Amino acid sequence: MEPTRFAATIAYDGTDFAGSQLQAGGRTVQGDVEEALERLFGQRVRMALAGRTDSGVHARGQVGAFTVATGLDAPTIARALNAELPEDIAVRKLAQVDEAFDPRRWAVSRWYRYTIDNGAERDPLARRTAWHVRQPLDPEPMQAAADAVVGEHDFAACAGRVPDERSTIRNIMSAGWSTVGRCRCFDIEGNAFLPHMVRMLAGAMTRVGRGALSVAEFVRLLASREPGSLGPAAPPQGLCLMAVRYERGYRP
Amino acid sequence: MEPTRFAATIAYDGTDFAGSQLQAGGRTVQGDVEEALERLFGQRVRMALAGRTDSGVHARGQVGAFTVATGLDAPTIARALNAELPEDIAVRKLAQVDEAFDPRRWAVSRWYRYTIDNGAERDPLARRTAWHVRQPLDPEPMQAAADAVVGEHDFAACAGRVPDERSTIRNIMSAGWSTVGRCRCFDIEGNAFLPHMVRMLAGAMTRVGRGALSVAEFVRLLASREPGSLGPAAPPQGLCLMAVRYERGYRP
Repeated sequence: MEPTRFAATIAYDGTDFAGSQLQAGGRTVQGDVEEALERLFGQRVRMALAGRTDSGVHARGQVGAFTVATGLDAPTIARALNAELPEDIAVRKLAQVDEAFDPRRWAVSRWYRYTIDNGAERDPLARRTAWHVRQPLDPEPMQAAADAVVGEHDFAACAGRVPDERSTIRNIMSAGWSTVGRCRCFDIEGNAFLPHMVRMLAGAMTRVGRGALSVAEFVRLLASREPGSLGPAAPPQGLCLMAVRYERGYRP
Repeated sequence: MEPTRFAATIAYDGTDFAGSQLQAGGRTVQGDVEEALERLFGQRVRMALAGRTDSGVHARGQVGAFTVATGLDAPTIARALNAELPEDIAVRKLAQVDEAFDPRRWAVSRWYRYTIDNGAERDPLARRTAWHVRQPLDPEPMQAAADAVVGEHDFAACAGRVPDERSTIRNIMSAGWSTVGRCRCFDIEGNAFLPHMVRMLAGAMTRVGRGALSVAEFVRLLASREPGSLGPAAPPQGLCLMAVRYERGYRP
């Protein structure tokens, strides 16, 4: 059989993972899917992921890709994988793709959502998927800060770590806050993101919403390009990778 | 100081509890709140609850009541309790009530919601709060079955266990299915419920929605008054005690 490449849309509850990427010591999304693939195909199968997510960060639309010589069709592999995977990971879609498909390099954008539970008291049923902020948040300056990040900017100020040789310029297509019940949601779509970038932006904009930081100061810190100056980051449980977009190769 | 009676509206994620009521061996909602009260007041304080929930069943509006001699006011006690309680329980409201207030006996109704995740594939982020049913569910016969339970009936057929001396007649004020995204929600309000009653009704109505049970057969089984004949029950994680209603004494 010829090797066939497959792409998969993957959802997970990040609470009990050390992150998405394979690493020593700690359950990872990549590790768990690769173990399920190995049980299914009887051989080691490596999977590449579109985006790196930290421990505690969730996904509804992570994209992975792997190549395996198999006679099974995509729907059968999806069902078999879901039967093998633990209950906090699921394959939502699986399709055959071009043999050169690279889920990270071929992606044209990622959409992340950060959720704040803004109720007066803690909600035990939201604690794994939202950051509880008790203080009232003013939506207008938060949206003004979100407007300021749209476009191409050097985002070094909201990078957790910046390798010397890498560019910190990213292109943000859209960024905005909305209200869903007692929650405040920050949706941001960009070509790519620096480590901790969305959580630092969400944290800084929340300080703007509380009145602890002015929009002008937010814009000044962003422009400073001083690594970490927009921190501290909002905690991981509020963050979710909603979707990865491709212009060709795979429709998640 | 005179003893003062307080009522509290309590929310919890039931996943890691052995149930609501104090019992040997296993974390309980009552046990955790009583321990927090003991740390706060330096003495054992007993709490009565409006409704019994099983292991894995959640609450947004459980009601408890306790009596303690204290000079602290209700908002202060609520804040202090929330600081003492683990993250999967929270006090949403706390108020001084009549010294005779009994959260169970004074309740005029309980509202429960059962949530089914009806997506084609598992949703890892919904697995703790919804029952995943993959098969398509036809809403019309499910609603017809729900209509059949409204009113005063002998619900022995959907009781997990029926003590000889107790009546199994309950009065259901409303029961209905609705669609929220890919979820199907069953809301039911009644004066009181038998053990496992809501989960048995949700399980049987889901079989109706799948076409495995006709509405006529559902009605016949319900009328049979044969304990457990409407089972098996739907699993606990889909169930949530949304609110307890009082005509006097406490407004949750």
